[in-house]
Amino acid sequence: MIIDCHGHYTTSPAQLTDYRNAQIAHFEDPSKPEAIFAEISDDEIRESIEGNQLKVLQDRGADMTIFSPRAVAMGHHIGDEKMSKIWTRRCNDLIHRVTTMFPDNFIGVCQLPQSPGVAIENSIEELERCINELGFVGCNLNPDASGGMWTGMPMTDKSWYPFYEKMIELDVPAMIHVSGSCNPNFHPTGAHYINGDTSVFMQLIQGDLFKDFPDLRLVIPHGGGAVPYHWGRYRGLADMMKKPLLTEHVMKNVFFDTCVYHQPGIDLLFEVIDIENILFASEMFGAVKGIDPETGQYFDDTKRYIDALEIPDAHKNKVFEENIRRVYPRLDSALKARGK
Amino acid sequence: MIIDCHGHYTTSPAQLTDYRNAQIAHFEDPSKPEAIFAEISDDEIRESIEGNQLKVLQDRGADMTIFSPRAVAMGHHIGDEKMSKIWTRRCNDLIHRVTTMFPDNFIGVCQLPQSPGVAIENSIEELERCINELGFVGCNLNPDASGGMWTGMPMTDKSWYPFYEKMIELDVPAMIHVSGSCNPNFHPTGAHYINGDTSVFMQLIQGDLFKDFPDLRLVIPHGGGAVPYHWGRYRGLADMMKKPLLTEHVMKNVFFDTCVYHQPGIDLLFEVIDIENILFASEMFGAVKGIDPETGQYFDDTKRYIDALEIPDAHKNKVFEENIRRVYPRLDSALKARGK
Repeated sequence: MIIDCHGHYTTSPAQLTDYRNAQIAHFEDPSKPEAIFAEISDDEIRESIEGNQLKVLQDRGADMTIFSPRAVAMGHHIGDEKMSKIWTRRCNDLIHRVTTMFPDNFIGVCQLPQSPGVAIENSIEELERCINELGFVGCNLNPDASGGMWTGMPMTDKSWYPFYEKMIELDVPAMIHVSGSCNPNFHPTGAHYINGDTSVFMQLIQGDLFKDFPDLRLVIPHGGGAVPYHWGRYRGLADMMKKPLLTEHVMKNVFFDTCVYHQPGIDLLFEVIDIENILFASEMFGAVKGIDPETGQYFDDTKRYIDALEIPDAHKNKVFEENIRRVYPRLDSALKARGK
Repeated sequence: MIIDCHGHYTTSPAQLTDYRNAQIAHFEDPSKPEAIFAEISDDEIRESIEGNQLKVLQDRGADMTIFSPRAVAMGHHIGDEKMSKIWTRRCNDLIHRVTTMFPDNFIGVCQLPQSPGVAIENSIEELERCINELGFVGCNLNPDASGGMWTGMPMTDKSWYPFYEKMIELDVPAMIHVSGSCNPNFHPTGAHYINGDTSVFMQLIQGDLFKDFPDLRLVIPHGGGAVPYHWGRYRGLADMMKKPLLTEHVMKNVFFDTCVYHQPGIDLLFEVIDIENILFASEMFGAVKGIDPETGQYFDDTKRYIDALEIPDAHKNKVFEENIRRVYPRLDSALKARGK
């Protein structure tokens, strides 16, 4: 089967955005009414999925998406912790409804109620709720809750450790995924996303996180940011820092997805990164929704680029399914329980 | 001839660093003595160059380096404007001594006395001095004088325009080059450099800078940051923003250097970026100084990767010389004046 490990609910019914806008308005000006969440019907959810993610997933020949709330809308930098908690629960609950209605095609990954300056421990409760009660299989962990101001600490800092301990206890990976940017220097999907990926990878080279957490698994999306293109630079920097080879130091625990929206980029990714570390993903519908005039195909139809690779089918199977089931063992268990 | 468009004086005699350390110490604690610059002899400069950049340049079969002060040490975020001005003049004057002693092998590009929150107009005087009096051919322009805090405005903001006007009047390009990082999230050469390149390219997509300045030329170093690897993403984002094709919108004015330290990265760069937009560079000795255990060659010997490309010699000549002479017309004039 073919699993897309990186999809967000970017097509959720308008009530969700209306609620968020009202929530922000009330936070900024408490004289404005408190946000009220207008109920979303099953039919509305069905419509938002069947005509969009599900249709395109199937059109492109894939089977399942690991599904999470819209990343750019997580907005951890907006408001305060209380607001982030309420918003996060709303978003995760909606993902849960999708996964309950379409159990064969969607399985959940949760947003976390992060907030600038707030200890990551405070996100553990929602992680446990989503994993233990809602059947989710992982989380999106924002390395920069400040939304492009980067006021927090690197992900190797011990302040993150309680969360990693819980991830290992629950046996779930995190996708390292920033949200929107309030820094005018950083376009969200064109700069902040890619910078976040690149910066965290370099933090992992500088640190020794996986010596402390040999079982921790982190997915760096968007093809690993700039890393595969500059793989020589990163190998060389690790060497200058007297770190072990990256294959030992980082790549037993870090995985890159395939959200790279052209054939030459995918070619490079598969040339320099070990096949065990690559997970199929498209982030459909995400940053780039259009059709590439050079190919006549959707930019984000990444399966097409992988299909075109001249590599053994066994390697493609790893990327499309086996690696993902290994990195997300709760997904593997859920599939096995259904005889898949 | 073969011109390396990106080299920094990373091997300058110790007096320069000693001076800088004393300058910073005095700024932080004015009770400490004012920094005194211990003279550097011609012999010391000769030794610092002949055994290092010049030797390796020639060993690798190149002829000339466009040479500028050490980028990570520009440190615009340290101290105040006055301190930045004094430090910048020292650094540029030292480059001038190198280019005077080795006119066939080194030509200057200047550091600018930027400082957070200080108008870029204040850097015009030093630009003019370096171009008109010291014979330099370009400048390094820091898109983030705050050193990883990114507190300034995007490079498309009108506050940058007076400087662009002066660049055009002087007919010099700028290399967009950040300096050190005081943000613990961003390793300087492993994250901040690459993020800076990526972020500015995206700013250029968002804006319409080259409509206002059709003659402005910007060099984005380190192979264009993450951009070539994500070329589909950037083409797609431009399309979603209803911008012209990148070839029209940005790439008449923007050039990527070849500081990409492995063969697959260089292969990708040449596959997706037009040959007219690629400038040879190695940033030797820069971020990555070691030998790649996979090849037995220095990571930053980028000429070797280009030599290995199966492209016409005429294309290699463009990258090694012609494009650089076109982008740096004052270099071209200086070479022609010497019959080259």
